[in-house]
Amino acid sequence: MSEHTSLSRIRCAALHDRVMSAEDAIKYIFSGANVGMSGFTGAGYPKKIPLALADWIRQQHADNHEFKINVWTGASTAPELDGALAEVDGIEMRMPYQSDPTSRARINSGQMQYMDIHLSHVAEYVWFGFFGHLDIAVIEVAGIREDGSLIPAASVGNNKTWIDLADRVILEVNYALNEGLEGMHDIYYGTRLPPNREPVPILKPGDRIGSQYYHCPLDKIVAIVETQAHDRVNAFTEPDDDSRRMAQYIIKFLENEVKKGVLPPELLPIQAGVGNIANAVLFGLGDSQFQNLTAYTEVIQDGMLKLVQDGKLSQVSATALSLSPAAVKNFNDNIDFYRSRIVLRTQEISNHPEVIRRLGVIAINGMIECDIYGNVNSTHITGSTIVNGIGGSGDFTRNAFLSFFVRPSIAKNGDISAIVPMVSHTDHTEHDVQILVTEQGLADLRGLSPKQRAETIIENCAHPDYKEQLRDYFQRAKQQSNRGQHTPHILSEALSWHDRFEKTGSMKK
Amino acid sequence: MSEHTSLSRIRCAALHDRVMSAEDAIKYIFSGANVGMSGFTGAGYPKKIPLALADWIRQQHADNHEFKINVWTGASTAPELDGALAEVDGIEMRMPYQSDPTSRARINSGQMQYMDIHLSHVAEYVWFGFFGHLDIAVIEVAGIREDGSLIPAASVGNNKTWIDLADRVILEVNYALNEGLEGMHDIYYGTRLPPNREPVPILKPGDRIGSQYYHCPLDKIVAIVETQAHDRVNAFTEPDDDSRRMAQYIIKFLENEVKKGVLPPELLPIQAGVGNIANAVLFGLGDSQFQNLTAYTEVIQDGMLKLVQDGKLSQVSATALSLSPAAVKNFNDNIDFYRSRIVLRTQEISNHPEVIRRLGVIAINGMIECDIYGNVNSTHITGSTIVNGIGGSGDFTRNAFLSFFVRPSIAKNGDISAIVPMVSHTDHTEHDVQILVTEQGLADLRGLSPKQRAETIIENCAHPDYKEQLRDYFQRAKQQSNRGQHTPHILSEALSWHDRFEKTGSMKK
Repeated sequence: MSEHTSLSRIRCAALHDRVMSAEDAIKYIFSGANVGMSGFTGAGYPKKIPLALADWIRQQHADNHEFKINVWTGASTAPELDGALAEVDGIEMRMPYQSDPTSRARINSGQMQYMDIHLSHVAEYVWFGFFGHLDIAVIEVAGIREDGSLIPAASVGNNKTWIDLADRVILEVNYALNEGLEGMHDIYYGTRLPPNREPVPILKPGDRIGSQYYHCPLDKIVAIVETQAHDRVNAFTEPDDDSRRMAQYIIKFLENEVKKGVLPPELLPIQAGVGNIANAVLFGLGDSQFQNLTAYTEVIQDGMLKLVQDGKLSQVSATALSLSPAAVKNFNDNIDFYRSRIVLRTQEISNHPEVIRRLGVIAINGMIECDIYGNVNSTHITGSTIVNGIGGSGDFTRNAFLSFFVRPSIAKNGDISAIVPMVSHTDHTEHDVQILVTEQGLADLRGLSPKQRAETIIENCAHPDYKEQLRDYFQRAKQQSNRGQHTPHILSEALSWHDRFEKTGSMKK
Repeated sequence: MSEHTSLSRIRCAALHDRVMSAEDAIKYIFSGANVGMSGFTGAGYPKKIPLALADWIRQQHADNHEFKINVWTGASTAPELDGALAEVDGIEMRMPYQSDPTSRARINSGQMQYMDIHLSHVAEYVWFGFFGHLDIAVIEVAGIREDGSLIPAASVGNNKTWIDLADRVILEVNYALNEGLEGMHDIYYGTRLPPNREPVPILKPGDRIGSQYYHCPLDKIVAIVETQAHDRVNAFTEPDDDSRRMAQYIIKFLENEVKKGVLPPELLPIQAGVGNIANAVLFGLGDSQFQNLTAYTEVIQDGMLKLVQDGKLSQVSATALSLSPAAVKNFNDNIDFYRSRIVLRTQEISNHPEVIRRLGVIAINGMIECDIYGNVNSTHITGSTIVNGIGGSGDFTRNAFLSFFVRPSIAKNGDISAIVPMVSHTDHTEHDVQILVTEQGLADLRGLSPKQRAETIIENCAHPDYKEQLRDYFQRAKQQSNRGQHTPHILSEALSWHDRFEKTGSMKK
């Protein structure tokens, strides 16, 4: 990372005296502070300050001084933030989402407290005062305009809320960001505390309802650090056979819903979670006959960008970009084209139940496992160990027109079944789970009672290696459960697969 | 029930030729039909037709003819509907909610299929076509106007949707209903299928945005049956000591939130589930200093009516009335007073996430049990046996400003603990559960990580008879779960309390 101190992107001269090094800027961050940082799925997070802070914390701890902060973000960040601060045990409480191996390890070893909450709840709960006072905001921007307004970076997340609520704001101006980002964002200032809320006036995914900039009172900005550093890149993986197969099940299903008149020919706005299967679905849509698609989602990955590039996706609303190096290049080379088709919003709005429901979003999300009744676990291994967090999956899946959960039917070389008798942790109850997809097939659960769901899930989605085991459990549960024929379970056995996996390394009997 | 065939409440003369007996009307209901019936929490359900149909089905089955229908309602009904039809095994699939002992027994013995779904999802999923075609609507009304518009009864539920979508409509005109009900309803015709949806224009709980009547094309109405029968009465029970104690914890908590400036002095619109504890909370609010309260809820019980009567509750929005005989009398005697303060809506709107979120509803709901991390089970005993259904609790609790779950800490003379290591069934994940209340105390879970939640829940809410057992489980789970310190569980033991209860009749060790 080369130093870039030309001030050329800080066009508000009154702020020049606040430009300083990261080492100086961090003096505003005190132990015990609640710090709202920018960052969503590895985009738009501050590049220097967390590292400088981590160094400082390491020194403090070496001198036997306590130093921990509470870190609130949009969603996940990067090794330079979550990894660095976790490594020095600098985080007391993390909220609402993380995906870093180091922070994950700290959380799972009990050294860091963590709250994963619905991403749409973060801005409002902080505003309500549920988590205490927001002391400092640390926000990455692409530039500062003459009037002091701030050009957002490659993610918006909760930055508007952090800026609004924090006592003090520290900015990072990242010169590596394409200046063509300017104009791509829609920062809505119309949200209010109840009882003064009004409708969010979005009727179509691409509707612009706010400002292109963050607005921050100048006297709140205590420090500005200039950087030149790229967002965490995501390696692009070609969809594998399983992903392609799952994508095809979904696309055939959607085609059939259009034939039945349940879905319009241009479908409805799509939400796709991050990951290879989501990418595969999007690539599959690119090869399909569908035209004039739209998306109302959280993150724009390679697959979605390609749909925009190919003219298949006419409007995309998200809160963050999360692209591979090749896609970043494509994006930068054609930024004017993309700016007219992409809008990056606050996650308060990208994940807003009101809008998701109004638009009738088709939600496609991954999962860790689901049980025979269709309850989904998105976050925990064997009930106790967290992977990432619920993220926005609940916002979308509860309010979706159609809610898909997708995952390969086995993992760890066949030692783990994605379909189990009972999930070891529930993130989405069966009420919110309409369609399950594995490489084995698709289970349409709409209109089915729990036992009917179980038959369909085991038949269509379970791996052949586990199908008999599941049928056997289901059969015996029905036999043994005299008065419990609605959702038959054998409680002494329901979690035994996970237990067996913990003890023997495999779920197989 | 006296026969009343004066036609006086059927003011549209063109419909007179469709008045017939219930026995004649049921000929329009064929085996295999999807039938949308009125009814919500024992109000507004058809009084004669289901009984006549049950008789017919009994005869059919005695003659070895198959006869089953699928019954969709707003929510629960009464013995004359759910009980009668279940008893003759006349229901193939029931949706979305029931609370009848006979239908419950049929469901739990595997003789009836049942789907409990979020109440706000019903109208739209049926409209989307997810459950198949709606053949017949059977709707209770208070009268028919000259122009053919229909005066709703004491509940609205999904009646508008049933009338809109059904091929044929059968009406029951109930002369026992107070004609003063006319004007109390707000039937919104502004909902649409995506992508044509627009904001629901409710900004305050009492806002009226629709018509006072249902509108049905006259040629869809194939039969009209006159009745004179009262809604299922709910016995009013004085709040017991435990309920009063729980109510006081909640009220003290709300007072404190007002002091902190988190809640305005008039609070925010209240939603209270049915039941004694909810009533106790409402009575407690009546004794408190709070003024100018509002409610945006599903059902108006005695407690809520009293708040309106006493001038404490200025606007109440609901979808149904569910009153004790004494309260019914009070309601009827003062109906003009109540009409200006109460609005009965479609459940599509009373339970709409968009509105609940916008208004910032304070949701107070009961539960069966919750676990040490705050996951809530609202529906199942020992994982397999369903009691009622999730109802609207998810609509409110996910979108609430504040979400309370309340329940006494023990049941069955102390053989059941309401707080358990792991719930045997999840309806509301910890992400949606902010405050737990038992007669032991209140646990404020906002801002806490799972282990912090567990400490608070066990300390504040668990019964003394179970506190040590829970602490012991939690302690050992933390010790044994090396890499699982985020949500420590011992999977082989997590459901053992339920198992022990099934085998020994008590959860106690």
